[in-house]
Amino acid sequence: MKGTMLYGPRDVRFEDMESPRIVHPTDAVVRLAVTSVCGSDLWPYRGLQPLDGPSPMGHEYCGVVEEVGSAVTSVKPGQFVIGSFFASDNTCPHCRHGYQPSCEHAEFVGGAQAELLRVPLADGTLVATPETPADDLLPSLQAVSDVFGTGWFAAEAANVQPGSTAAVVGDGAVGLLGVLSARLKGAERIIAMSRHEKRQQLAKEFGATDIVTERGEEGIARIKDMTDGVGADSVLECVGTQESMSQAIGAMRPGGFVGYVGMPHGVSLEGEKLFFTHAHLHGGPAPVRNFLDELIPLIWDRKIDPGKVFDVTMPLDQVAEAYKAMDERRAIKVLLRP
Amino acid sequence: MKGTMLYGPRDVRFEDMESPRIVHPTDAVVRLAVTSVCGSDLWPYRGLQPLDGPSPMGHEYCGVVEEVGSAVTSVKPGQFVIGSFFASDNTCPHCRHGYQPSCEHAEFVGGAQAELLRVPLADGTLVATPETPADDLLPSLQAVSDVFGTGWFAAEAANVQPGSTAAVVGDGAVGLLGVLSARLKGAERIIAMSRHEKRQQLAKEFGATDIVTERGEEGIARIKDMTDGVGADSVLECVGTQESMSQAIGAMRPGGFVGYVGMPHGVSLEGEKLFFTHAHLHGGPAPVRNFLDELIPLIWDRKIDPGKVFDVTMPLDQVAEAYKAMDERRAIKVLLRP
Repeated sequence: MKGTMLYGPRDVRFEDMESPRIVHPTDAVVRLAVTSVCGSDLWPYRGLQPLDGPSPMGHEYCGVVEEVGSAVTSVKPGQFVIGSFFASDNTCPHCRHGYQPSCEHAEFVGGAQAELLRVPLADGTLVATPETPADDLLPSLQAVSDVFGTGWFAAEAANVQPGSTAAVVGDGAVGLLGVLSARLKGAERIIAMSRHEKRQQLAKEFGATDIVTERGEEGIARIKDMTDGVGADSVLECVGTQESMSQAIGAMRPGGFVGYVGMPHGVSLEGEKLFFTHAHLHGGPAPVRNFLDELIPLIWDRKIDPGKVFDVTMPLDQVAEAYKAMDERRAIKVLLRP
Repeated sequence: MKGTMLYGPRDVRFEDMESPRIVHPTDAVVRLAVTSVCGSDLWPYRGLQPLDGPSPMGHEYCGVVEEVGSAVTSVKPGQFVIGSFFASDNTCPHCRHGYQPSCEHAEFVGGAQAELLRVPLADGTLVATPETPADDLLPSLQAVSDVFGTGWFAAEAANVQPGSTAAVVGDGAVGLLGVLSARLKGAERIIAMSRHEKRQQLAKEFGATDIVTERGEEGIARIKDMTDGVGADSVLECVGTQESMSQAIGAMRPGGFVGYVGMPHGVSLEGEKLFFTHAHLHGGPAPVRNFLDELIPLIWDRKIDPGKVFDVTMPLDQVAEAYKAMDERRAIKVLLRP
């Protein structure tokens, strides 16, 4: 089959590789219906995260089960399934607490920008849809496998409550779906921080009530102004830089909540400073599996359309161009069709 | 009157000073029934926190109202009152959210190791007891003004739930009262980290089910062992050093809760490392005022005795010796009688 490898900064190649096969009896092999590029793929693409040699890329996926190992009981060939980027048994203590990325048997699922994907721990990881979905549902079902699950986790971690004020730092696909998640959780006021017109537009479609274009201290001052000097109850940090984290903590009211889901790169928090903000800080790699049972029906019943974050669709063999478009911020997020 | 000044590292003097008086119409002056030395007083005492010139010491207090300003309506001369170390109006948005130390009019209350104390924002800050308390209740009523309120906040911030496992880092008075708080909140298993026999004993009296004497990585390994490799649901960090914070985060299960109330000194948190622990982190200066209405009745009705942390009582004029005894860990906490 063909799949995507990253050889070094900005060196993405779509090439022949060995087809995945069942290795453990708990594995499944999935034929991908669609796949996509994640914001986190851009860190190694930009050379900002070291590569350990040429790496198979992609960890967002949905598709049809091609084959299952002998121990798999909950999904079968022919079923349409959605998974998440950490395979998990979904039965260990950490999974039961809702933190599947820390599963005692967790395994990162890589190589999804391809035609076929091996998914370990299929019973714990994959969720089948009621039937094969209509084509127009694919973008949203693909979104829930990572980017929407992550935006949702940001809103959960930031404790968004009905009637509250939420601010969202980051106008990438995760941030935009953080806006949607905050709306679903009933936030009355949702402040999206963005200076990019197309993304502002989508933020509004998803439920943003206010747009703040200022950044850093100015952005913080703007949000304080808008909230009578109090600050936001909840801030969703969807970037992962020192600047975005400081902005998130600064925009929060004393004792407020910051949900951070952008993988931190070079972020350091000074204990004493944090202490006096009374911040509630929670985040990490999103336990997407924990949310699939709740979120898939919302998509299936067409109540929400998180797939709107895919503003560009390309054939999978143009994956290198997809990275380029996202790197240059010409695309919010690219959907790839094998 | 006489009061306590810190002139420099280990230079505590009990000396004549001007008696406090009403400055603002919202002030009260309180004649202290008892007073005490706080673990946080030891930071500047040890020269580990810079002093801005000679400083009046003490911020834990209870006593009888001597005089009130013209705007004070909720307490009157002759009443026995308890306050906390941040004066607050208890009406601003931050107070209503339960974060009185961030009150829009917050003012630190200093100089309580003295005969008299001026308390700003008396209506928002002071809580009167039903009547003048019996003498044997004074240690516990004094404790609630800071050290018990802080231990309680550690347990709140660490989200201690009925039936859960809590670990407590730090066997100072706050840590010991963190143990008591975790028990009051229904933790099934309470692991106190201490290598000091007298403190272990008190931890057990307060409800600790297990004692861990190991520290650092060994202490973490011991707690993991004791919890089938999972880690504690809640960890109360009651010290404020890099070591204690790392120990707290390490002892927690993935996705667990760390409540940190020891004022951080030189603590830095690496974002990426924190990210993968899925920690819920919350803490800060304890909003003691938020807890007084709930905790005073437990003391008044003799259901709990947090005052047991005062293992030594001295006359106030021996305050320098009180600092010394706590610095050398000969005393857990010293109660001072004016």
